[in-house]
Amino acid sequence: MEKIVSLCKRRGFIFQSSEIYGGLNGFWDFGPLGVELKKNLKDFWWRRNVRERDDMEGMDGSIIMNRAVWKASGHEETFSDPMVDCKECHSRNRADQLPEKNGEKYCPNCGSRKLTEPRDFNLMFKSHAGPLESDDNLVYLRPETAQAIFVNFRNVLDTSRQKLPFGIAQIGKAFRNEINPRNYIFRSREFEQMEIEYFCRPEDGMRLTDYWLEERLKFYEDIGIPRSKIKIHDIPDGDRAFYSKKTYDLEYEFPFGVSELEGIAYRTDYDLGKHIEHSGKPLDYFDEATKERLVPHVVEPSAGVDRTTLALLCEAFDEETVTDEKGHSETRTVLRFHPRMAPIKCAVLPLLKNKPPLVEKARAVASSLKPLMNVFYDEAGAIGRRYRRQDEAGTPFCVTIDFDTIGENGPEKQDTVTLRHRDSMQQERIALADLKAYLLERIL
Amino acid sequence: MEKIVSLCKRRGFIFQSSEIYGGLNGFWDFGPLGVELKKNLKDFWWRRNVRERDDMEGMDGSIIMNRAVWKASGHEETFSDPMVDCKECHSRNRADQLPEKNGEKYCPNCGSRKLTEPRDFNLMFKSHAGPLESDDNLVYLRPETAQAIFVNFRNVLDTSRQKLPFGIAQIGKAFRNEINPRNYIFRSREFEQMEIEYFCRPEDGMRLTDYWLEERLKFYEDIGIPRSKIKIHDIPDGDRAFYSKKTYDLEYEFPFGVSELEGIAYRTDYDLGKHIEHSGKPLDYFDEATKERLVPHVVEPSAGVDRTTLALLCEAFDEETVTDEKGHSETRTVLRFHPRMAPIKCAVLPLLKNKPPLVEKARAVASSLKPLMNVFYDEAGAIGRRYRRQDEAGTPFCVTIDFDTIGENGPEKQDTVTLRHRDSMQQERIALADLKAYLLERIL
Repeated sequence: MEKIVSLCKRRGFIFQSSEIYGGLNGFWDFGPLGVELKKNLKDFWWRRNVRERDDMEGMDGSIIMNRAVWKASGHEETFSDPMVDCKECHSRNRADQLPEKNGEKYCPNCGSRKLTEPRDFNLMFKSHAGPLESDDNLVYLRPETAQAIFVNFRNVLDTSRQKLPFGIAQIGKAFRNEINPRNYIFRSREFEQMEIEYFCRPEDGMRLTDYWLEERLKFYEDIGIPRSKIKIHDIPDGDRAFYSKKTYDLEYEFPFGVSELEGIAYRTDYDLGKHIEHSGKPLDYFDEATKERLVPHVVEPSAGVDRTTLALLCEAFDEETVTDEKGHSETRTVLRFHPRMAPIKCAVLPLLKNKPPLVEKARAVASSLKPLMNVFYDEAGAIGRRYRRQDEAGTPFCVTIDFDTIGENGPEKQDTVTLRHRDSMQQERIALADLKAYLLERIL
Repeated sequence: MEKIVSLCKRRGFIFQSSEIYGGLNGFWDFGPLGVELKKNLKDFWWRRNVRERDDMEGMDGSIIMNRAVWKASGHEETFSDPMVDCKECHSRNRADQLPEKNGEKYCPNCGSRKLTEPRDFNLMFKSHAGPLESDDNLVYLRPETAQAIFVNFRNVLDTSRQKLPFGIAQIGKAFRNEINPRNYIFRSREFEQMEIEYFCRPEDGMRLTDYWLEERLKFYEDIGIPRSKIKIHDIPDGDRAFYSKKTYDLEYEFPFGVSELEGIAYRTDYDLGKHIEHSGKPLDYFDEATKERLVPHVVEPSAGVDRTTLALLCEAFDEETVTDEKGHSETRTVLRFHPRMAPIKCAVLPLLKNKPPLVEKARAVASSLKPLMNVFYDEAGAIGRRYRRQDEAGTPFCVTIDFDTIGENGPEKQDTVTLRHRDSMQQERIALADLKAYLLERIL
């Protein structure tokens, strides 16, 4: 794990938030490569789940919502961890994570055994909207994006032409005031979710839960996380939320242990029912075929953007020993991202930087690709070193512009380039005219 | 304006946040069409400013940062509006917006003239990170994205290969606890910014401010807001922030008045200087050419996502009287978005829904386009009504699959479709084989 964290900092994937001020526990920033990786993940999720489907609508709700939403959903009452205070040093800790000695729990900060009884600590960040810090103005930062979908169910139904089954999808930030943020960006206090609420008739709920399990496994495969690396945990009766008839957790083997990437929960009509009860609004559905009104059931595939980003980094990270032309062996660090996820799709490299025709041609090639994909132009250093830099960034393709390209070795080689593959380090010759289509086919 | 607000609600562009609970003042949700419009805007800004430029790095910082950031930037001290409390009804109001009668100010809520002296009300949303609601744990929701860029200046410089001048770009949410949110999504409490901090040598600051003015005007033109509609306000000496040597406001004529879309401010070395002073970290730059260390100056083009989205809607909205084949005139509502911004790029319509070969062909055409663009498939209702629905959604192209397409009128017309243009309502015949390239050229 340390190697991944170090690479992420060194190459600009992930930085500590507010690092120059000592950071802030549970908050992270994404650097130039990290923001592209995350954007590729989110854009592909959006394309696959929203744009390519006729039965899905997108939306984007606000982070701060009316407090009534969280009363109705139950979060204000129950979204909490058990806490104890130390009566000596006044530090606060999770009751279920206290150290124990001779069967007695003690404060991890000062060692005192004078602890309060456990009480619930709500994980929602509180704030106030409006000029007074009064109870009337109390608001929460949403601890999940899902509720914005439920409260907009009627609006989306009325403005789209959807019939059951159909879904509403959303990507956005959520906040949880974790007592103990940990495992790098896996459990942070500010994070991003990609959530679908898929509404259906009650009798279709179980079947559609299995359908979404399959869809989501395909998705992970399509971004480079093979099915064999994902553990499907079918949560047994009694361990699920009381309203859920079926829940699958999809888990990935992170370096710090097997941990949840996504949950797929059949939540029945619990959420819409709660909002009907609390708002008094008709969040039901009229079925034209059966002439009945019903409260739709819902299947929720809910994935974490940051967790999946971390899984992509863990899955891609590799070190191998390679031997150069002179017989020296060295360690090659490479991020083997699926081309679709790679922050940089193609590096364009003039063989030499002091030959204007090479530089000019390389810049022209880079410019022609840029409206279509993220391209990196690099002219500094030996070509081998430039390849290695791209290996570390996870760039699947490097294109080298050499003397053949500019026609110095005859017209039959003119306008061909060296295409170098990140994973195999193999090089092939390809016509410039075919380059765009070749790359597009692999990154789309 | 009412017509635009009504269309936005009716067609699913924009909803009130938490509407079923009476909404929340200053917060908005984006529906199925709104989220696509906003995504197109953000994606094009990112492509134009980050991916197509060699001198720009992207990043994505957390919304909650260490409080020290806001002490250093001056926001904790000075990011405020003047407020007065009413001593009778305890309502709080902006001092500069109080109603006046006979030269005396009074409370807009109860009419009392017993008002406190004005005092500063900080516009940053407060919260606490960690288990205690203590001063040590106080955090703010960022009121602007810019500071995340300044505090990451060193990290980005060290992990990229940039030399001055170069920029760092970011899109993300920011929060301001406005006392009086107003003008629909123009001034809300939760909003999104697209900001660039472009770092340069001091002697290049003024010139680059003019360069960015020109770049940004081109950008607005490229999304369908013509140069003639943007008023450039060159803020005079004395009206600018004290550290700014030059500031341009780009203003658009909204229905509620001419208002700011974007500010382009030459902020000198004020921000990096403040963070050097407060963090003690070396946020300076070593110039290899001149062998000197310097604190870069910065030019900041800062645009609002929601404001620009609103400008796109206002600019696109049109009503015209059209006459149908039978001589009846009616009002056509149309959103004349630039194809690049339009939420739906192309609607695919089988002429009749009860002819399986038409439906099958239309679905195949829609599927072939979907990985490349947002496509809407619609088979319900008369073709004229379906066109009108797309006009209201701003869809630039409709493709109709008819009996010619499926070869019922001879092989020479087979695999051609009717392409109908939103703005002119003109129709032309186009070969299916050419459709993808035709559309891509216009929406990219």
